[in-house]
Amino acid sequence: MTLRVGVVGGGQLARMMIAPAVELGVEIRVLAEDDGMAAALAATSVGDYRDAQTVLVFAREVDVITFDHEHVPQDVLAALIDEGVAVHPGPAPLRFAQDKLSMRARLDELGMPQPDWAAVTGPEQLQAFLDAHGGRAVVKTPRGGYDGKGVRVVGAAAEAEDWFAALAEDARGGALLVEELVDFSRELAQQVARRPSGEIAVFPVVETVQRGGVCAEVLAPAPRAGERLTEVAAQIGVGIADGLGVTGMLAVELFETTDERLLVNELAMRPHNSGHWTQDGAVTSQFEQHLRAVLDLPLGETSPTADWTVMVNILGGPSEGGLADRFAAAMAEYPDAKIHTYGKAPRPGRKVGHVNVAGDDLDDVAYRARAAASVFLD
Amino acid sequence: MTLRVGVVGGGQLARMMIAPAVELGVEIRVLAEDDGMAAALAATSVGDYRDAQTVLVFAREVDVITFDHEHVPQDVLAALIDEGVAVHPGPAPLRFAQDKLSMRARLDELGMPQPDWAAVTGPEQLQAFLDAHGGRAVVKTPRGGYDGKGVRVVGAAAEAEDWFAALAEDARGGALLVEELVDFSRELAQQVARRPSGEIAVFPVVETVQRGGVCAEVLAPAPRAGERLTEVAAQIGVGIADGLGVTGMLAVELFETTDERLLVNELAMRPHNSGHWTQDGAVTSQFEQHLRAVLDLPLGETSPTADWTVMVNILGGPSEGGLADRFAAAMAEYPDAKIHTYGKAPRPGRKVGHVNVAGDDLDDVAYRARAAASVFLD
Repeated sequence: MTLRVGVVGGGQLARMMIAPAVELGVEIRVLAEDDGMAAALAATSVGDYRDAQTVLVFAREVDVITFDHEHVPQDVLAALIDEGVAVHPGPAPLRFAQDKLSMRARLDELGMPQPDWAAVTGPEQLQAFLDAHGGRAVVKTPRGGYDGKGVRVVGAAAEAEDWFAALAEDARGGALLVEELVDFSRELAQQVARRPSGEIAVFPVVETVQRGGVCAEVLAPAPRAGERLTEVAAQIGVGIADGLGVTGMLAVELFETTDERLLVNELAMRPHNSGHWTQDGAVTSQFEQHLRAVLDLPLGETSPTADWTVMVNILGGPSEGGLADRFAAAMAEYPDAKIHTYGKAPRPGRKVGHVNVAGDDLDDVAYRARAAASVFLD
Repeated sequence: MTLRVGVVGGGQLARMMIAPAVELGVEIRVLAEDDGMAAALAATSVGDYRDAQTVLVFAREVDVITFDHEHVPQDVLAALIDEGVAVHPGPAPLRFAQDKLSMRARLDELGMPQPDWAAVTGPEQLQAFLDAHGGRAVVKTPRGGYDGKGVRVVGAAAEAEDWFAALAEDARGGALLVEELVDFSRELAQQVARRPSGEIAVFPVVETVQRGGVCAEVLAPAPRAGERLTEVAAQIGVGIADGLGVTGMLAVELFETTDERLLVNELAMRPHNSGHWTQDGAVTSQFEQHLRAVLDLPLGETSPTADWTVMVNILGGPSEGGLADRFAAAMAEYPDAKIHTYGKAPRPGRKVGHVNVAGDDLDDVAYRARAAASVFLD
């Protein structure tokens, strides 16, 4: 019998599940938001993932439902569960990915290290938090943010006025999340995979470099990561995956503070940009691992295949022409660069592809990955 | 602009081009012989590749036509060329892959080392060849053979009687190919990629192990391959690719004789079973390299990513159930095994998948690859 995975969402994460699905021999079907999306090759349906009936019809053709993103509403997830559909990750862990306030509260319960935080319903509460934390803090909308959207560093409560106004208009009411501005030396990401049956596989912790709130590059494994750091990061990843009951891939974005603590920044319950390096730098890629995990198959070996792998995002792309127009130049100059593009039209700031380079000299690998990616920009 | 490759033939070689096409961001379309073939995910058309009109219509949607097999008739290839379609490999080199007598004659002209051979039109000629070569020889039908089909070791002319009878009935007439029975110590394979513009990339020479005329496993790079052997194999590969004007991947199957010469056995002008190890053991896989070559893009780095990679074919599969039924057992026991299955129903002797294992100890790697593949058999 062929195993069939259904992916809700047709973006690049769904697209990048196609390769390992084809290689393993797993049938992959995608419910895309629109025609011509990144995962178009496997898009067997096009429809609205917020519509329970659409998702239910799609689910009937597959053995398990998983996701390209975390935005499928809880009532749709509940309808799938009611129909006996296997859904990974399930509604319970997804709730914490969908609502950052719930996530913070739950991580506190689990005893996970995190920045000081509070739920604030009005400017006075926010100002009080600011006053108690040196006058500056990070304000986040609990829902719908990603890649720096819905995140704002503020020095006064007035700077979040529009968000409070929007809250007041929202029938659901609610609060904003405010977090201390962490004095971090760098950002890391810890990925783990967890099967429904409980098996967990831990990837090496990596360093992520953000520019303008968007992931720009990833160094794998994280340079200067001693045994203790590696172990603490893994414990956090495993603790969260177990504690929230995550199934599939989990990425935990971490701050490494100047006083050498690790604090949890964000969670993603799906393959994640911080794990793209695994496609060309680990025995099992995060995309294959996600498929194995959601199908409840034994997890693959996560060790790196090279001393260093560096991933650099192609952000925006050239202002004229498509990415393929730059293939010849990039390939001629960097024959060892692994080029990944997502079939998306270039647009300023948009993630349209990435480059992985692996090797035994970190400086050289990083240089080559950055240079190869830059060929795709103006 | 997105680059579009059209593959004629929907078997596992076309299927295995899908992953690198999706990763690079090249659109891949397949003209399959039938519904539900291995490359079904990318099968945008189903039709007869022997029908020029069918292939022409398919070709209009892509930038270049390439192949899953070498069986497209010369008149169909000529019709494509007449219409200005880019076809790689082209009709001229493909003729040598389609007709082993032409191939032997051309390799002689190129000064390539090969077994003694002759074209024989009747039993008397065959017997004369046998008498001159120790009483035993290999007889081959010049066209249509693969995986041991159309190949027979004979000790008397009478043993090829049926093939001579078939020749007599064939309006095209023709001859059989007879080759000396080479006293070889092992079989090797040399793969090279060549672009239309002439650039060539050389993969490491590998050892291939055949059972019953079918490739059973591949050890990469070939163990005990000194500098001289590696260089001679590369020279043969490059000489043939250049000499025949091959574009795309070329595999040269070689005998290593007991007196340490290399002799050319067979050619394949496409990705080849001897190169499946590159999917998990080389910087650039043969499937990505084939796409780059036929699109006339700069070729990728061919160096291995591990000391050793061993590929073991899954021949036949289990007598009951599909290959996916064995995933859990194989993955649990061999978490580093890269499992590839082709979406084909198990059938005795049929190539339905393969396993790659990479590492630094050849014996261990070979043991694990064989053991993991055997999980898929009874």
